[in-house]
Amino acid sequence: MATPITSPLDSGATDITGRVLQETLVDLVDLSLVAKQAHWNLVGRQFRDIHLHLDELVDLAREHGDSVAERAATIGVAPDGRARTVGRDTGLPEYPAGYVSDSDTVLTISAIVDAAVDRLRPRIEQAGKADPLTEDLLIELGRALEEARWMWQAQAAGYRGEV
Amino acid sequence: MATPITSPLDSGATDITGRVLQETLVDLVDLSLVAKQAHWNLVGRQFRDIHLHLDELVDLAREHGDSVAERAATIGVAPDGRARTVGRDTGLPEYPAGYVSDSDTVLTISAIVDAAVDRLRPRIEQAGKADPLTEDLLIELGRALEEARWMWQAQAAGYRGEV
Amino acid sequence: MATPITSPLDSGATDITGRVLQETLVDLVDLSLVAKQAHWNLVGRQFRDIHLHLDELVDLAREHGDSVAERAATIGVAPDGRARTVGRDTGLPEYPAGYVSDSDTVLTISAIVDAAVDRLRPRIEQAGKADPLTEDLLIELGRALEEARWMWQAQAAGYRGEV
Amino acid sequence: MATPITSPLDSGATDITGRVLQETLVDLVDLSLVAKQAHWNLVGRQFRDIHLHLDELVDLAREHGDSVAERAATIGVAPDGRARTVGRDTGLPEYPAGYVSDSDTVLTISAIVDAAVDRLRPRIEQAGKADPLTEDLLIELGRALEEARWMWQAQAAGYRGEV
Amino acid sequence: MATPITSPLDSGATDITGRVLQETLVDLVDLSLVAKQAHWNLVGRQFRDIHLHLDELVDLAREHGDSVAERAATIGVAPDGRARTVGRDTGLPEYPAGYVSDSDTVLTISAIVDAAVDRLRPRIEQAGKADPLTEDLLIELGRALEEARWMWQAQAAGYRGEV
Amino acid sequence: MATPITSPLDSGATDITGRVLQETLVDLVDLSLVAKQAHWNLVGRQFRDIHLHLDELVDLAREHGDSVAERAATIGVAPDGRARTVGRDTGLPEYPAGYVSDSDTVLTISAIVDAAVDRLRPRIEQAGKADPLTEDLLIELGRALEEARWMWQAQAAGYRGEV
Amino acid sequence: MATPITSPLDSGATDITGRVLQETLVDLVDLSLVAKQAHWNLVGRQFRDIHLHLDELVDLAREHGDSVAERAATIGVAPDGRARTVGRDTGLPEYPAGYVSDSDTVLTISAIVDAAVDRLRPRIEQAGKADPLTEDLLIELGRALEEARWMWQAQAAGYRGEV
Amino acid sequence: MATPITSPLDSGATDITGRVLQETLVDLVDLSLVAKQAHWNLVGRQFRDIHLHLDELVDLAREHGDSVAERAATIGVAPDGRARTVGRDTGLPEYPAGYVSDSDTVLTISAIVDAAVDRLRPRIEQAGKADPLTEDLLIELGRALEEARWMWQAQAAGYRGEV
Amino acid sequence: MATPITSPLDSGATDITGRVLQETLVDLVDLSLVAKQAHWNLVGRQFRDIHLHLDELVDLAREHGDSVAERAATIGVAPDGRARTVGRDTGLPEYPAGYVSDSDTVLTISAIVDAAVDRLRPRIEQAGKADPLTEDLLIELGRALEEARWMWQAQAAGYRGEV
Amino acid sequence: MATPITSPLDSGATDITGRVLQETLVDLVDLSLVAKQAHWNLVGRQFRDIHLHLDELVDLAREHGDSVAERAATIGVAPDGRARTVGRDTGLPEYPAGYVSDSDTVLTISAIVDAAVDRLRPRIEQAGKADPLTEDLLIELGRALEEARWMWQAQAAGYRGEV
Amino acid sequence: MATPITSPLDSGATDITGRVLQETLVDLVDLSLVAKQAHWNLVGRQFRDIHLHLDELVDLAREHGDSVAERAATIGVAPDGRARTVGRDTGLPEYPAGYVSDSDTVLTISAIVDAAVDRLRPRIEQAGKADPLTEDLLIELGRALEEARWMWQAQAAGYRGEV
Amino acid sequence: MATPITSPLDSGATDITGRVLQETLVDLVDLSLVAKQAHWNLVGRQFRDIHLHLDELVDLAREHGDSVAERAATIGVAPDGRARTVGRDTGLPEYPAGYVSDSDTVLTISAIVDAAVDRLRPRIEQAGKADPLTEDLLIELGRALEEARWMWQAQAAGYRGEV
Repeated sequence: MATPITSPLDSGATDITGRVLQETLVDLVDLSLVAKQAHWNLVGRQFRDIHLHLDELVDLAREHGDSVAERAATIGVAPDGRARTVGRDTGLPEYPAGYVSDSDTVLTISAIVDAAVDRLRPRIEQAGKADPLTEDLLIELGRALEEARWMWQAQAAGYRGEV
Repeated sequence: MATPITSPLDSGATDITGRVLQETLVDLVDLSLVAKQAHWNLVGRQFRDIHLHLDELVDLAREHGDSVAERAATIGVAPDGRARTVGRDTGLPEYPAGYVSDSDTVLTISAIVDAAVDRLRPRIEQAGKADPLTEDLLIELGRALEEARWMWQAQAAGYRGEV
Repeated sequence: MATPITSPLDSGATDITGRVLQETLVDLVDLSLVAKQAHWNLVGRQFRDIHLHLDELVDLAREHGDSVAERAATIGVAPDGRARTVGRDTGLPEYPAGYVSDSDTVLTISAIVDAAVDRLRPRIEQAGKADPLTEDLLIELGRALEEARWMWQAQAAGYRGEV
Repeated sequence: MATPITSPLDSGATDITGRVLQETLVDLVDLSLVAKQAHWNLVGRQFRDIHLHLDELVDLAREHGDSVAERAATIGVAPDGRARTVGRDTGLPEYPAGYVSDSDTVLTISAIVDAAVDRLRPRIEQAGKADPLTEDLLIELGRALEEARWMWQAQAAGYRGEV
Repeated sequence: MATPITSPLDSGATDITGRVLQETLVDLVDLSLVAKQAHWNLVGRQFRDIHLHLDELVDLAREHGDSVAERAATIGVAPDGRARTVGRDTGLPEYPAGYVSDSDTVLTISAIVDAAVDRLRPRIEQAGKADPLTEDLLIELGRALEEARWMWQAQAAGYRGEV
Repeated sequence: MATPITSPLDSGATDITGRVLQETLVDLVDLSLVAKQAHWNLVGRQFRDIHLHLDELVDLAREHGDSVAERAATIGVAPDGRARTVGRDTGLPEYPAGYVSDSDTVLTISAIVDAAVDRLRPRIEQAGKADPLTEDLLIELGRALEEARWMWQAQAAGYRGEV
Repeated sequence: MATPITSPLDSGATDITGRVLQETLVDLVDLSLVAKQAHWNLVGRQFRDIHLHLDELVDLAREHGDSVAERAATIGVAPDGRARTVGRDTGLPEYPAGYVSDSDTVLTISAIVDAAVDRLRPRIEQAGKADPLTEDLLIELGRALEEARWMWQAQAAGYRGEV
Repeated sequence: MATPITSPLDSGATDITGRVLQETLVDLVDLSLVAKQAHWNLVGRQFRDIHLHLDELVDLAREHGDSVAERAATIGVAPDGRARTVGRDTGLPEYPAGYVSDSDTVLTISAIVDAAVDRLRPRIEQAGKADPLTEDLLIELGRALEEARWMWQAQAAGYRGEV
Repeated sequence: MATPITSPLDSGATDITGRVLQETLVDLVDLSLVAKQAHWNLVGRQFRDIHLHLDELVDLAREHGDSVAERAATIGVAPDGRARTVGRDTGLPEYPAGYVSDSDTVLTISAIVDAAVDRLRPRIEQAGKADPLTEDLLIELGRALEEARWMWQAQAAGYRGEV
Repeated sequence: MATPITSPLDSGATDITGRVLQETLVDLVDLSLVAKQAHWNLVGRQFRDIHLHLDELVDLAREHGDSVAERAATIGVAPDGRARTVGRDTGLPEYPAGYVSDSDTVLTISAIVDAAVDRLRPRIEQAGKADPLTEDLLIELGRALEEARWMWQAQAAGYRGEV
Repeated sequence: MATPITSPLDSGATDITGRVLQETLVDLVDLSLVAKQAHWNLVGRQFRDIHLHLDELVDLAREHGDSVAERAATIGVAPDGRARTVGRDTGLPEYPAGYVSDSDTVLTISAIVDAAVDRLRPRIEQAGKADPLTEDLLIELGRALEEARWMWQAQAAGYRGEV
Repeated sequence: MATPITSPLDSGATDITGRVLQETLVDLVDLSLVAKQAHWNLVGRQFRDIHLHLDELVDLAREHGDSVAERAATIGVAPDGRARTVGRDTGLPEYPAGYVSDSDTVLTISAIVDAAVDRLRPRIEQAGKADPLTEDLLIELGRALEEARWMWQAQAAGYRGEV
C-alpha cells in the first residue's frame, strides 16, 4: 500500500527524520526487552531494589518507544518494531542468558544504557536539521535516558569498587 | 552460574513446566510486539476504535507474559524473553511491514490470537500433569486470551462479510 | 444466522459447556433481580444493614453473570438472558410480592442462595470434563456464592432462633 | 402484610403515581436485560464500540430503575421488578435470540429506546398532576433516555443508509 | 446595610420565595443538629448501623441547607441560620436530652423527618407560583427528604412491631 | 441533508424549543469566550482570586453549553455554535480589548452575567409550554447562572463602594 | 435512663472533664453556625476568598465538635449540641443579621475566633488535671483554633489599617 | 490602559512573538468551536467513536489555546480570543451548518487540522528567531496537532477509499 | 547481638519505657487476633454489621501495635510480638473457640476492650515520667481504644437489656 | 453451640477440608507475626529495602489467612486463629528474639517461607480430592507463597555468597 | 573522591553546563526559601490568597531546583545546594526579616521573580551552545518562571496603583 | 512594623516559645537542604534505596518546618528561615561538598539526625513550661525525628560493621 499518511515535511527531511526515528525505536524496544529480561533473571542481595529499578527502565523504554513510533507514523513513515527487526537491527549489547547476579546486572545494564545514550546523541543533531518537532521529542527522550544512565552509573561505581 | 533458585517441584516436573512456560513467554512477548506494531501502522475508517483495542491486547500480553516469566524463575528455570530468542522461537504468524488497513488488521490480529490460543491449549494439559500451580496460571491466561479471541473474531466476521 | 464465532472446543464439549453456562446465566440474572426486589421491599429493624447487604449480592450476581455470558459467547454459544427466558427457565424459588419483613427477607434470601449453590455444584463437575477454562470460571463463582451463602446463613440462624 | 410505609400523598395521587412508577420500572428492568443481551450477542465490524455503548445503556437503565423503584417504595407502593413480572408486563419490543449483527443491533436497540421514550412521555404528564416530586424524577429519566435515543438514532441513520 | 444584591424576581415573588427559603433553612439547620445529637447519644444493639445512618442524615441536612441559604442570598434575601434563630423558629419536634436507646432513636428520628416532610410540601407549592428555580431546588430537597423518611419509617415499623 | 433525527415533540413544540435552545447556546458559547478573555487580560491586586473565579465561570458556560446543544440535537434541531454565528447572534454586551483592571473586570463580568440571566428567564417560560424536559434543563442552568450572578454581584458591590 | 456507658475515670474527674467538653462543644457548634452565617451573608471585593476561608472554619468547627462530643459520650457524659442549648449556653459574641461587608466580616470573625481561643485555654488546664486523654484532644483543637486565629488576625490587621 | 506587564523581550522580539501567539490563539479558539460543532451535529454509523474523538480535539485546542494566550499575556501582549475577533481573523476553513454525516465529518475535520498544522509551521520558525521559550511552547503544540492530524488522516484515508 | 540502636533516653527511662511498650504490644497483637477470631466465628441476626465493626478493631490494633513496636525499636529495646510470646504474656481474657452468637460476641469483645483500656491507663502514667514522646503515643492509642470501648459498650448495653 | 452453618460438602469431605484449612490458617497467622517481628527487629545496610519487603509478606499472610479462615467458616468448620492455638500448632521454624542483622533476617525468612511452601503442597492435593473450591483457593495461595519464596531465595543466594 | 559519574559531554561543554546549572540551582533554592519566608510572615487584607500563591512559587522552585540539580549530577558535576553555599552565592535580592504587609510582599516577590528571570535568560543561551538537553530543561524552567513573573507583576501593578 | 499578631501567651512565655521555635525552624530548614544535597550527590551500590530514603527525610523536614514556622507566626513571633539565617544559626554538622559514597552518606546523615534529636529534646522541656500547644507540636516532631534516627542508625550499624 502506498503511504496513506502524507508527511508535513518535505521528502528529504522526511527521509532523515524517518530513519532516525526507526533506529531509535529499535533501540528502545530492545531496551524494554533487555530490562524485563534482567528483571526476571536477577539474583543477589539487592534483588528487590534492582528488580523494581529495572521496571522503571522498562516503563521509560516503552513510553518513549511508543512516542517515537507514533511520531514516525505521523510523518508518513511506517515504524517497524517487530521482534525479528529488533533482533536484527538493534545496536545495544546483547544481554546474557540465564540468572545474573546483582553485581553483573548493574554493570551490564549500566553499559547498555550508556550505549543507548551514545547512539542517541548524534540522532538528535540530525533531527535538528530536518524537523524541530522530532528533535524536541528526542531531546525529551535524551533527558530521560541520561537520567537513567546517571542512576545506573551511580550504582555501578559501587560495584566496581570505585566508591 | 548454577541455578541459584531451587525448584519446589521434582526435576521431571520442573523440566516439563519450565519448557511450557518458556514457550508461552516467547509467544506472549511476540504478541505484545505484534499488537504494538499493528497499533502504530493502522489506517482506515475504524482507526481510533481498533487503535485502542490493540492497546488492550498489548496490556494483556505484557501482564500475562510477566506472570509467566516470573513463574519460570520461581521454579528455578531462567526465562528468556530477549528479542533474538523471540524472533527465533515464536510460533505466531508474522505480521506484515508497513501501514495496514483496518480490515486487514482485524483479520490478521484475529488469526494471530487464534494461533496463540491453539498453541496454549495443549500446554495447559501438559502443565496439569506436572504442576497444578502453573496449570492454574495458564488457565487464567487461557481465559483472557480466548476472551480476546472472541472479540477479534466478532469483528473479523464483519470484515469477512459473514454478518 | 449461523454462529459467527467458532468454538475452541470440539462440538461435544461445546454442547455440554454451553448448556451449563446458559443454565448458570439464567440463575444469576434471576438472582440479581430477586436481590434487587428484596432490596426495595424490605422493612424492619435491620433495614439499612440488609438493604446494603442485598446490593452486594446484586453486584455478585451481575458481575459473575456477565462473565458467564461472555464465556458462552466465547465458545460460540449465544447466551440468552432476556426477561422471559429467565422467568421461564430459572431454578430459583420465587420471591414473594410486596413488602417483606427483615426476618422473612433474610430467611428467603438465604434459601435462594442455598438453591443457587446446590444447582451450581454439579455443573462445575460437568464443566470439568469438557472445558477446564469454564470449570475455573465456575469455581470462582462457586467460591463467591458459597461465601455469600455463609453470610446469609449466619444471619438466618439468628432469625430462626438457633443462636 | 399491610403496607408499613405510609404515603406522603393522598390515596388518589398515590394510586396514579404508584402505577406510573411500576410501569416505568418494568420497562427499565427489561431495557437493562435487553441491552445486556445485545452486549453479549453482538457481532460485526463495530463490535467494540457498540459493545461499550450498550453497557452505558445498561447503566442508565439500572440506575434509573433503582431510583424509580425506591420512589415507589417511598410512597408506600411496593415495586415489583421480578423476572416473571417483567416478562409479562414489559411494553418494549422483544429482542431476538442468538448472535445479532452490528447493523441489526443498532436498528433494534434504537427502536427499543424509541419505544421506551414514547411510553414514558404520557406518564410524566400523569405524574405531574399527582406528585411533582415523581414528575421531576421522571423528567430526569426522560432527559437521559432521550439523549440515548438521539445517539442510537444517529447511528441507526447510518445503517439505514440515510446519511 | 440596604441589600447589596438585587433580586432577579419582582418584589412580591421575592418576598414569598425568601420566606419559604428562610423557613426551610431553619428546619434543615435544626435537622442537622438533631441528627448529630442522636448520633452522639445513641445506645443499643444496633448502635453502629444507626450511628452511620444518622451521619447520612446530617450530610443531607447540611448540603441542602447550604443550597437553600445560598438561593436566598441569590435572590437578595439574607438567610439567617444562627443558633438562636434556629432555636426560636424551628418547627421540628424537640429531641430529648441524654442517652437514647436505639428503639427510641429510630422512632423519634422517623417522626422528625416526617415533620420535616410535612412542612416542606406546602412550601414547594408556594414557591412554584413565585419562582420555578426555587421550586426546583425544593423538589430536589423533597425527593431526598422523602427517601430518608422511607428508610427511617421502614426501620421504625420494625421497632413498633408492625413487621 | 434532511434531519436524520426525528423529534419526540410535535413540530410546533420542536420549533419553539429549538429556537430557545439555539439562542441559549449562543449566549453560553459567548460567555465562555468572554470569561476566558477576562481570565487572560486581568491585572490588579486581586489577580489570582478573580483569575480562578473566571475559570469557574468558563466551566459553567462550557458544561451547560454542551448540554444545551445536545438537547437541541436530541429534538432534531441542529445546534450552531460556530464563531461567526456566535459573533453575530450573541446578546451579551461586548467585552473590551486589552488588559483590564480587577475593578473593571468584576463590574463588567457582573453586568454580563446579569444580562445572561435576564435573557434566560423568558426562555424558561417559553420552554415550559413546549417541552418540560427542556424546561428542566434550562431551570438547572438558571440556578447555576443566578448563583454566579450573586457571587459576582457580591464582589461588584464592593468595587462600587456600596459596602 | 441511667447512663449506660461507664466512665474510665473516677467520678470527680468525669464531672470536670464532662463539663469542659460540654462547654467546648457548645462553642464549636455555635462557631460552625456563625461561620456558615458569615459565608452566606458576605459581600464585598474579597467575596470569593473569604467565602472559601469561612468554609474551612466551618469544617474545623464541625470536625473538632464531633470529636469533642464523642469524647464526652466515651466517658459516660451525654453531650448536648441541640440548637436551643447552643443558643442559650454559647459564650461566643453574637453575629449580626443580614448582609455583612468583607471588612466587617473579617473583623467580626477574627474577634469570635479570639473569644473561642480565650475560652478554651483554661479548659485545657482543667482537663489536664482530670484526664490526659481529653487534655490531648483539647490541645489538638487549641492548635487548630489558634492557627485559624492567626490567619484571621493577619487579615484583620489589614482591614484595621495596621499594615 | 498602557500595558501593565513589561516584556522580558526587547520590543522587536515582543512584536514578532506577540503577533505569532495572537494568530495561533485565534486558530485554536476556532478549532475548539469547530470541533464542538462537529461533535454535536454528527450522524452516521460511527457516531460514538467520532463523537468521543472530537472531544479529545476540543480538549487539545482548549488547553493549548490557554497556554498560548497566557504566554502572550506573559510578554505584555494582551491576547484577544473573543467571538468576533475569532470569526474575523481565523484562517481555518469554515465548518458547514446542520447535521453532518460521519464520512463528511472525518474528511472535513481532517482538512481543518491539516490547515492548522500548515499555518503553525512557519510561526514556529518566526518565534525561534525572537523567543526560544515561545518557540518551545509552539513546538509542543505542533507535536500535539500533528499527532491529531495523523489520527484524523488515518481515518480519512478509509473514507476516501484509499485503504 | 548487643543492641545496635542506642537509646535517646537514659537507661532508667529506657527500661521503664521499654517494658511499658512491650506489654502494650503484646496486648495489641492479641487484640488483633481476638478480633479476627470473632470476625470469622460470628453468627446471628446482626452478622454483617458486627463483622464489619470487628475489622475496624483489627485495624486499630494492628496500626497502633505497629507504632508501639517501632517506638520500642527506636529507643533500642527489641520488641517481641511472636505468637508464643503473645500467648504467654497477654493480659486480655481468652476468647472462646467455635462459633459465637452476636450477643455473646458483643458482650465478650466489649469486656476485652474494657480490659485493654484498664491495663493501658497506668502505663500512660508510667511512660509520662520516663519519656513524654512515648506518653504521647500511648495517649493517642488510649483515645482510640476508649472510643472503641464506648462503641462496643453502647451495643453491649442493648444486649444486656439495659436500654 | 452446634454448628449453625451447614456444609455444602458431605461430612467426610468437610472433615478433610476443614483440617487442611485450619492447619493452613495457623501457618499463615504465624507467618504474619513472624514477618512483623522481623520487620521491627531488623538492622543492617539494607534496612529500608528489607523492612518494606517484609511488610509485603505480612500483607500476603494476612490476606490469604483471612480467605482461608472464611472458607473454613463457609463449610461449617469454625476456624481458630488465636495466639495460643497458633503458638501451639504452628509448623514454621521459630524466629529468634532481639535485633537481627539483614543477612540473618534474609536467610531466616527465606527458610521460613520455604517451610510454609513445603507444608502447603500436600494439603493442596488433599483438598483436591475433597473440595475443588478449597483446592482453588489453596492453589492461589500457593502461587503467591512460591513467588515470595523465589524473591527471598534470590536474595538469600547473595547472602550465602552463591552469586 | 574523583567524580564517579562520567559526563556524556566533552569537558568544555561539561564545564559550561555545570556552571550554568549550579548558578541556577542556587537561585532556585534561595527562591524556595524566600517564598516560604514570605508565606509565613505575610499580613494584610489579602492574606489567604497570597499565602496560597506563595506556596505555588515554593513548589515551582523546589521541583525545578530538583531537576536542575539532578541534571548537574547526570553530567558528572556535583551540585551544591547547602545553606551556606546558597547564602553566599545567590543573586536574588534579600527578603526583609519580620512580618511584611501584603502590599510589600507582592512588590518584593515580584521584584525577586523578575531578578530570577533576568539571571536565567543568558544562561539558556550559554547552555544552548554546550548541551541542548540542558537548554531544554532551562527553557522549561524559563516558561514556568516567566508565567509566575506575569502573575506577580499583574498583582504588583495593582499595588503600585497603575491599574 | 510592630507585630500585627498578638500572642495568646503572656510575654515571658511568648519569648521562650518563640526562641525555641526559631531554633527548631533553622535546624529543620537546614536538615531539608542537607537531605536534598545528599539525595543528589549519592553514589554507590545502594544508590536507589538511599536516594528514596533521603527524600522521605526531606519531606519530614519540610512539613514539620512549615508547622513550626506557622506556630511561631501564630504566637506573634516572626519566623526566619532565610538562607543566610540558616547558614549562620544552624546547629547541625556540615555536610561535605561533592559526590559522597553510600557508606559515608548513611553514616553522615545518621549523625546529623542524631544531632537534630539531641538539640530538640531540651527544647521540648522548655516549651512544656511555657506553652503546652507548642510542646505538643514539638513532641510530634520528636516522634517523627526519632523514628528517622532509628532507621538511619539501623543502616549505619551495618556500614560500621556492627551487625
